Amino acid sequence: MEGITGILVDLFVLFAAAKVAGELFTRLRQPPIVGEVLAGVLIGPHALGLIGLPDSALIELFGGDEKAAEEALTVVLDVIAELGVIILLFFVGLETRLSELLEVGGRAAMVAVLGIIFPFILGFAFIWLTDPIGTEDLEIEAAFVATAMVATSIGITARVLGDIGAIRTREARIILGAAVVDDILALLMLSVVVGLGGDDFDALELGLTALAAVAFVAFAALVGTRVIRQYSIHLERLKIRNAPFLVAMIVMLGLSALAGIIGLAAIIGAFLAGMMLAEAKERFNLEQQALPIYEFLVPFFFVIIGTKVDPGAFTDPTVLAIALAVTGLAVLGKLIGGGLASAGMPFRSAAIIGTGMVPRGEVGLVVASIGAGIGIITDDMFSVVVFMSIATTILAPSVLVWLYRGYRFTAEDVAERPEEPPLPDL
Amino acid sequence: MEGITGILVDLFVLFAAAKVAGELFTRLRQPPIVGEVLAGVLIGPHALGLIGLPDSALIELFGGDEKAAEEALTVVLDVIAELGVIILLFFVGLETRLSELLEVGGRAAMVAVLGIIFPFILGFAFIWLTDPIGTEDLEIEAAFVATAMVATSIGITARVLGDIGAIRTREARIILGAAVVDDILALLMLSVVVGLGGDDFDALELGLTALAAVAFVAFAALVGTRVIRQYSIHLERLKIRNAPFLVAMIVMLGLSALAGIIGLAAIIGAFLAGMMLAEAKERFNLEQQALPIYEFLVPFFFVIIGTKVDPGAFTDPTVLAIALAVTGLAVLGKLIGGGLASAGMPFRSAAIIGTGMVPRGEVGLVVASIGAGIGIITDDMFSVVVFMSIATTILAPSVLVWLYRGYRFTAEDVAERPEEPPLPDL
Repeated sequence: MEGITGILVDLFVLFAAAKVAGELFTRLRQPPIVGEVLAGVLIGPHALGLIGLPDSALIELFGGDEKAAEEALTVVLDVIAELGVIILLFFVGLETRLSELLEVGGRAAMVAVLGIIFPFILGFAFIWLTDPIGTEDLEIEAAFVATAMVATSIGITARVLGDIGAIRTREARIILGAAVVDDILALLMLSVVVGLGGDDFDALELGLTALAAVAFVAFAALVGTRVIRQYSIHLERLKIRNAPFLVAMIVMLGLSALAGIIGLAAIIGAFLAGMMLAEAKERFNLEQQALPIYEFLVPFFFVIIGTKVDPGAFTDPTVLAIALAVTGLAVLGKLIGGGLASAGMPFRSAAIIGTGMVPRGEVGLVVASIGAGIGIITDDMFSVVVFMSIATTILAPSVLVWLYRGYRFTAEDVAERPEEPPLPDL
Repeated sequence: MEGITGILVDLFVLFAAAKVAGELFTRLRQPPIVGEVLAGVLIGPHALGLIGLPDSALIELFGGDEKAAEEALTVVLDVIAELGVIILLFFVGLETRLSELLEVGGRAAMVAVLGIIFPFILGFAFIWLTDPIGTEDLEIEAAFVATAMVATSIGITARVLGDIGAIRTREARIILGAAVVDDILALLMLSVVVGLGGDDFDALELGLTALAAVAFVAFAALVGTRVIRQYSIHLERLKIRNAPFLVAMIVMLGLSALAGIIGLAAIIGAFLAGMMLAEAKERFNLEQQALPIYEFLVPFFFVIIGTKVDPGAFTDPTVLAIALAVTGLAVLGKLIGGGLASAGMPFRSAAIIGTGMVPRGEVGLVVASIGAGIGIITDDMFSVVVFMSIATTILAPSVLVWLYRGYRFTAEDVAERPEEPPLPDL
């Protein structure tokens, strides 16, 4: 275990900075993840430089090759961040029961679909028509940015709705249902775009990736959930302590790795593992056990994402202008999509639904990190997408709180849900 | 997050193999950690080669430099293993209250001290006199092997005593008290030996390392525990969810990094963090929350240690002979030390105490991994120490069970302890 003291110091600084910033932002009534990402930007190699630079012991491990040592450090931090985002999506999956998904009414599905189509079209058209940064693969970069603009962060929306006691309102239920559908569709789109970006454009490959994504999702959702529902009781026969939880972790790691192998994003596997195990979560107390791992590892994802942002990029007026434009279009797309899908409902309800779908939060960040990882989007465009994710996440909660002011809660709205899901601290 | 799918696959294979082997060994009534280490040996690069070899995507990250990619993969796995062993020692620390430590009677202290002196002398003398492998720094290698022979695995002993319902017997209380003192002394010795091995021999540096170790331990144990006891109530004022647990994780990472910076083993910092936070563990439910992280990360340490063992080394009759000799001396040292310290007690009690101190378990493995990491001990000697740790761990439980057969339990022995610590599954 030679030469890794410096990495331990990095991990300490990352975690401590994330949590101090999270505390600060919570006190400012902002989502803690925003603080975590901004803390990463601050301590990252582009700003204070506390993180991401290998120390002499690590460089020595690579025979003095500083570049290799830096790359190795990046790989280490990426793996830790990846474990964090895998746990995050696993947890979101745990909250998503297939049965509840199938119960979601047409309204929620419509909100999801229109709320995907509009931001995607607006985002794609903007990048494609203006070509603001001048990349080689314009279509693919445009598709990637547009995909990052698509997915709602179910965690943030649910957290805000819970905080203001509106989680049982009709609007909230539509938002939550739509966010789940939206997540799955966005993950599918992400798979397709990742498949597109992996090599040069290849229609066959695109088709295969999409097919693999659909087959994987369908198999896990239909067969996987059934297997867990019917056979998970037998996990009690295993002799190692806490076997069901350990098996859940094995399934999570296994489906994540499998998703990666067949060319999908690993997080899709993690999400599906969570959705499968949602069928057994009460029996084995899975959520309560996954929560400490969530709280220990997930912050690493957000703060490490932050370290990859170059705040200097925004001193370039072009980049700043693109960031503001993309953010505006991301908001507009969800308001139009949500509003149209809410036709026939009161204006306040339509506005609540549209606004509730606005925060991109971790999903936008995940898409950005994948895009940057496989080299589809430029560093500047990465910073733009991170900006959009953070800005929409900061904006939406306050507007939502404001829209609910004077809302007449019915008795049913206020009634305690029989089983309130423990919402992670996003 | 490019190029890390292969690493995800590795992490899945490591975790799944560890848990399958753990289940198998539990069914064979053997300690699960033995299964985890052996699983690592089996899947490691020296045997099946499922783990530890970089895939093409990772090699591409390093511009085709296969050696750098392999080194990077080693660093990633070492960091994951290090996080695992940090959590492990943090948890052991959580179980160790300073107050209980100070209450430990003279008998336990004597068992600990004699149980350290004899294995150390026997181990050091054997290596030093025979020089079986022919290394450059014979004294330091001998001191390292001897140090690995010193520390009892409190987890394994406690687990066995708990399993057979003997945890309240006088012998058990002496063993547990002695094991705690033994752990701390062994960690101090480890610091000194690590300091010795870091550079060429330097009496001043040795003195400084020892001084730093004592000062760090004393400060954390005396000032740290007092600070936690008096001020931890204020953690409730923090706004982020589950703040006390997150602060505990920050303290754990911080003291681990600090220990590394001042030249001690990182795990000493983790242990001290746990011991400090033991003062607040009931109030904030720290053990219950640390447990899932423990169960997720600790297996990685044991299975990754296993991957570093070359089973082929034991086909060399010399290495096998050394392994058997070191194991025999490790057993003998504890039997003599424990037996002498138990003077005046019945023979069966002395035998129980001596045998209870025999398993080296994770502590021997930790010392071995540190020694191999900083290049103090050769690969062959690393395999010898791992063999000794595993063999003593397999041997002791059955002998202990046999010695307790026919033991006359008093009413006090059988009485439920007011507060039974949840023992991790070692």
